[in-house]
Amino acid sequence: MTTARIIDFIKNRRPEGPCLVVDLDVVKNNYHAFRHAMPDSAIYYAVKANPAPEILSLLASQGSSFDCASVAEIQMALDAGATADRISFGNTIKKERDIARAHALGVNLFAVDAHEEVEKVARAAPGARVFCRVLTSGEGAEWPLSRKFGCVPQMAVDVLVYAHQLGLESYGVSFHVGSQMTQVDAWDSALADAKRVFSQLSKQGIHLQMVNMGGGFPTRYLKDIPSAEAYGKAIYAALRKHFGNHIPHTIIEPGRGMVGNAGVIKAEVVLISRKSDNDDARWVFLDIGKFGGLAETMDEAIRYPIRTVHDGGEMEPCVIAGPTCDSADVLYEKNMYPLPLSLTIGDEVLIEGTGAYTTTYSAVAFNGFEPLKAYVI
Amino acid sequence: MTTARIIDFIKNRRPEGPCLVVDLDVVKNNYHAFRHAMPDSAIYYAVKANPAPEILSLLASQGSSFDCASVAEIQMALDAGATADRISFGNTIKKERDIARAHALGVNLFAVDAHEEVEKVARAAPGARVFCRVLTSGEGAEWPLSRKFGCVPQMAVDVLVYAHQLGLESYGVSFHVGSQMTQVDAWDSALADAKRVFSQLSKQGIHLQMVNMGGGFPTRYLKDIPSAEAYGKAIYAALRKHFGNHIPHTIIEPGRGMVGNAGVIKAEVVLISRKSDNDDARWVFLDIGKFGGLAETMDEAIRYPIRTVHDGGEMEPCVIAGPTCDSADVLYEKNMYPLPLSLTIGDEVLIEGTGAYTTTYSAVAFNGFEPLKAYVI
Repeated sequence: MTTARIIDFIKNRRPEGPCLVVDLDVVKNNYHAFRHAMPDSAIYYAVKANPAPEILSLLASQGSSFDCASVAEIQMALDAGATADRISFGNTIKKERDIARAHALGVNLFAVDAHEEVEKVARAAPGARVFCRVLTSGEGAEWPLSRKFGCVPQMAVDVLVYAHQLGLESYGVSFHVGSQMTQVDAWDSALADAKRVFSQLSKQGIHLQMVNMGGGFPTRYLKDIPSAEAYGKAIYAALRKHFGNHIPHTIIEPGRGMVGNAGVIKAEVVLISRKSDNDDARWVFLDIGKFGGLAETMDEAIRYPIRTVHDGGEMEPCVIAGPTCDSADVLYEKNMYPLPLSLTIGDEVLIEGTGAYTTTYSAVAFNGFEPLKAYVI
Repeated sequence: MTTARIIDFIKNRRPEGPCLVVDLDVVKNNYHAFRHAMPDSAIYYAVKANPAPEILSLLASQGSSFDCASVAEIQMALDAGATADRISFGNTIKKERDIARAHALGVNLFAVDAHEEVEKVARAAPGARVFCRVLTSGEGAEWPLSRKFGCVPQMAVDVLVYAHQLGLESYGVSFHVGSQMTQVDAWDSALADAKRVFSQLSKQGIHLQMVNMGGGFPTRYLKDIPSAEAYGKAIYAALRKHFGNHIPHTIIEPGRGMVGNAGVIKAEVVLISRKSDNDDARWVFLDIGKFGGLAETMDEAIRYPIRTVHDGGEMEPCVIAGPTCDSADVLYEKNMYPLPLSLTIGDEVLIEGTGAYTTTYSAVAFNGFEPLKAYVI
């Protein structure tokens, strides 16, 4: 997954220290794969996955819309050339003054999941469109989401009725099937719930128009994943099944699926050692760890592909850890990671599939280490 | 634990957004409590706990030395007025070029835990002092450390012999009993190990001079902790027990114990809601969470005291979560946190005991939110 352009960049620029290199051509290809696989859905890129200005500008120029988690992200999307009508303030947890700021910037689409949030939007962005997030089961996701976002479908009906009563436009329903979702039929039951909310509101004269089908589209780490095509087919089949001839506007919010495979982290082996003379395990310490951008290795959740110049030679399972004085800064230990026996201190390694959720998760200065640098090429 | 000075600062300055306020008087008191309780040990403040320049300057002026994890931290300690002879490069995982940089800045004391690291120090800082970190059991610590740092005592002997052979000064042994260690006798067995390393090297004509007894000194969260005095008594008793009349130089490296209780985070309630009409649990969302500085709530490890203006009224267990669009950004859920029933959206809350490991753990821009601001008064 390391492209020739990324290899050339690292070879010619020799950037000092760990860094992420993102190939915009891959992002562009991903965007058009989604576009092609789901031509009837609007794509709202989840800015939080990687808000690099070059990525936002590229996507804005290709016609993407943007799912933003904060006023700062909204400002970034606007700066990248998006118009306010292509921006969704998708965080269900917003300060009222931030809703007002977003509204002043022209944003008119807000996520809610509670009566209390509806009241804030009604006061700070009168007349705006709202969609209510519904809790889903998350079955089949590599990381099912917590119950943090959304409410049960019956409560979503009440929330949207309340929004209507307060003068807002009750516009639709959203859900999220869970992160790194590799089962293409996962959207089916959530769409059934969405349809029920549509029907119940319709009986009360409120006609929803939109289903926000969220993100969850995976990127390839060590295991193969279904194609965008396969997701598109399964999702449109589920839409037809539940909505028949009245398919609403739909939105998808890819983040990891848009940029994950576009980025590679260049890192360096700082130390290779054992804990005792007869220790089975070699410990390989890199100059990047959990606090430098690889936070998603928490609980060894994501297993990133790691390439070295010695690939092809004899391998041995290793513990991999980061460079900080924090004993929790260990990437793979329970499930050790095979690395070449000939790997040496000072060697460069490439950590693939790191385009999403790395630069922004990076700690600001833990142990005095700089946040992860990024080059977008 | 919120001092009058902190309360006045928040009241008069009304800082916008979540922020940490640190009272230097508390840091000063903590320093002198350690000084008084362990008069024969040199205090090396663990800079990583909170590297605010004002804290480093205060401690430098009081006579503290500094345990640094990186060249950047070494530079900060120097900038704060410390001399290089009061600085330890305490990270066992160092790039050779960083060892050279530290040495060029005058630093002469380096941690090692492997032959490979000794080789780097011998090349990049010829003749420097090294101490070898030994693995300890970590029993009794609220967070026992992983096996990331240190080697078994027998290997430490070999490592220090090797350092001697390569022309370094084999200076001592270090260990860390585990973070937030509330058992004052925890140092005993580690000191027994240290003494064995001293004895074995002595037989080979290498006379170690120093034991670095690490950190692990707790700060008070919701439960009471032993006083600095109690630690001092237990540690010196253990030193006498194992080293008799030949007690070596000793170092302690308090971080959390030095600054934890000196800081308070001011935060705001962004949303209070339920997931369904008959949901037992209220969800309280703050404008700070796991990615904004409260990383140590991971696995609900630290339970910070939280103060509100409604304290004293009727309480109810709540789920507490952060403001990001990340479903992992939940602070307390398995073990819900009692908060006043009358708590309201927009209320200010004070999260106490947050002086250590908050600002630097903070993500650089996750979801577009700024890193945690800090005011040191």
